[in-house]
Amino acid sequence: MGLKVGIVGASGAVGKELIRLLGVRKMPVDQLKCFGSSKGRFLPFQGEKIPIETLSSSSFEGLDVVFFSAGSAVSKEYVNLARKKNVLVIDNSSAFRQDPKIPLVIPEVNPEDLENHDLLIANPNCAVIILLTALFPLHSIGKLKRIVLSTYQAASGAGLRAMEELKGETLAYLNEKPFERTVMQHPYAFNLFLHNSGLEKDGYFGEEVKIIEETRKILKDKDLKMAVTCVRVPTLRAHAESINAEFHNPVSVHQAYEALRVAKGVQICEDFEKNRFAMPIDAAGQEDIFCSRIRKDLSQENTLDLWVVGDQLLKGAALNAIQILECLRKKEKVLSPTLPNF
Amino acid sequence: MGLKVGIVGASGAVGKELIRLLGVRKMPVDQLKCFGSSKGRFLPFQGEKIPIETLSSSSFEGLDVVFFSAGSAVSKEYVNLARKKNVLVIDNSSAFRQDPKIPLVIPEVNPEDLENHDLLIANPNCAVIILLTALFPLHSIGKLKRIVLSTYQAASGAGLRAMEELKGETLAYLNEKPFERTVMQHPYAFNLFLHNSGLEKDGYFGEEVKIIEETRKILKDKDLKMAVTCVRVPTLRAHAESINAEFHNPVSVHQAYEALRVAKGVQICEDFEKNRFAMPIDAAGQEDIFCSRIRKDLSQENTLDLWVVGDQLLKGAALNAIQILECLRKKEKVLSPTLPNF
Repeated sequence: MGLKVGIVGASGAVGKELIRLLGVRKMPVDQLKCFGSSKGRFLPFQGEKIPIETLSSSSFEGLDVVFFSAGSAVSKEYVNLARKKNVLVIDNSSAFRQDPKIPLVIPEVNPEDLENHDLLIANPNCAVIILLTALFPLHSIGKLKRIVLSTYQAASGAGLRAMEELKGETLAYLNEKPFERTVMQHPYAFNLFLHNSGLEKDGYFGEEVKIIEETRKILKDKDLKMAVTCVRVPTLRAHAESINAEFHNPVSVHQAYEALRVAKGVQICEDFEKNRFAMPIDAAGQEDIFCSRIRKDLSQENTLDLWVVGDQLLKGAALNAIQILECLRKKEKVLSPTLPNF
Repeated sequence: MGLKVGIVGASGAVGKELIRLLGVRKMPVDQLKCFGSSKGRFLPFQGEKIPIETLSSSSFEGLDVVFFSAGSAVSKEYVNLARKKNVLVIDNSSAFRQDPKIPLVIPEVNPEDLENHDLLIANPNCAVIILLTALFPLHSIGKLKRIVLSTYQAASGAGLRAMEELKGETLAYLNEKPFERTVMQHPYAFNLFLHNSGLEKDGYFGEEVKIIEETRKILKDKDLKMAVTCVRVPTLRAHAESINAEFHNPVSVHQAYEALRVAKGVQICEDFEKNRFAMPIDAAGQEDIFCSRIRKDLSQENTLDLWVVGDQLLKGAALNAIQILECLRKKEKVLSPTLPNF
């Protein structure tokens, strides 16, 4: 007997990847319910056309698991309604990530935190998943002390419409036609800008605060030091990260490569002779995080520079959420006995 | 009596800006000679059409000053021929920048180094000019200790043809047409890649080594610590830099803003309420360096984060070269007495 799955935000960029991955990763799905704003339309799943339904408090009846990917406000309103119906929730929004009672999980990093879920697991911020999938194997050797991170974040982080707007605005620019933006706040064609999340405390963006706090929570290290600058660049669906990572103990370049070569979910992508390192178009559509060009930082002890690229919609969002479900299914014993389907 | 000026690489992106700036900045030019590879074509200057000539060893006869902007190989072959004819050279290539006898000058930072030129002044790397025009006022307060820099470098750094190729490849991508690149090594449409300069020692790119060594030379601090990652992004002509700067002594955010508000060649460009900070399209075509979002790095003492954007072709190249000449003309006494025109 398979799973009865719901997806909230099913017609969004992450929602569509969730549906695709349920098939690709051979999740035994008996029933799929799609919720979203495009009522009256359908989404394809395993040869069927799944209608997009409007979300309501009765939507969760009879489901085993629901993925939420429709923003923080929707999660805040509906996640607990689902849990009350004994439905497991994997939430891609930031609504519950900082709640100390809610596990925030990257399966390659902290699967042990799945042991204590109370029908809700939070999926981390995309930049955090990409960062820690690459850094955790090195953290296991040298223990991270301080990270200086500059991001190169793709349009997909702002959704499907942002991706379309980037293409539309760029085409208009090249054809010298006017263009009216409706998604992004700033001109995006051949341009970049500091991350368009709201400003929070100390002049940090919401996105930067999330990255720092989620990284600390996942690594269970409140003292981890981080300086983060988030930048939106005109690429489509893979984030890149320039990482300067200081460790408490030495991690050699050789050790780092060895650790990443055997790490799950990571690929080394580089060809020094051809001056060819990981690029967003390499990672786009790929499940792995691509790591490149691990260098000793000559300016400081126990410090490495890395260049990391990952598909924002896959490992950065939908894939990680699916992997959380896969982990839970493997660890049947940790699941609520009231969820016999797992 | 005005100057007899030569420009080597006159039809390139920087060369064209040099010609434009000679007019805009009201340099008294009696004669302009343009050298380049597009023989038979003409470049406009003050209502005249200047023919593009082929460079030869006799090209410098009778000139007062020559700007070189045709790459390192051309500079290595011709710069000393010009000097032998008593012609002042301002060289935009990297050929002589690391020669301890050759001044490497940003007029806002180390104009004093112009005192001892021997008819050759090197114009620094564009990313270095942008970095130090912004950081020097803060260095004067707290003395720089270590810089972690990630760049967002525009197509113009690879020349006019790279800018055209970025547009052409992007248009082809959007129209789902094939495109054959002839300039850039890697796909560039909605993509980015680590800087396409050759790899040098310790896995650092040539561009990164240049930035580190030139910064140390200009600041006269061999011990300055720097970690640099250079990235080429799909923007057209302004570089952006994510800077994490540690100082020996405290520099408050307030002090930093005050210093940059009065600094020459710098503008503060930000609107916190509108979440609006400096972008490449702000800086494109502008002479100033745009600084934004100076934050205290909460992860480390005496450390600030800055976001800096500057036109790569102007302050990053042509404008700085013209300003070097302007400085020399103001300081007549420091010029060779055999150059009466200054």
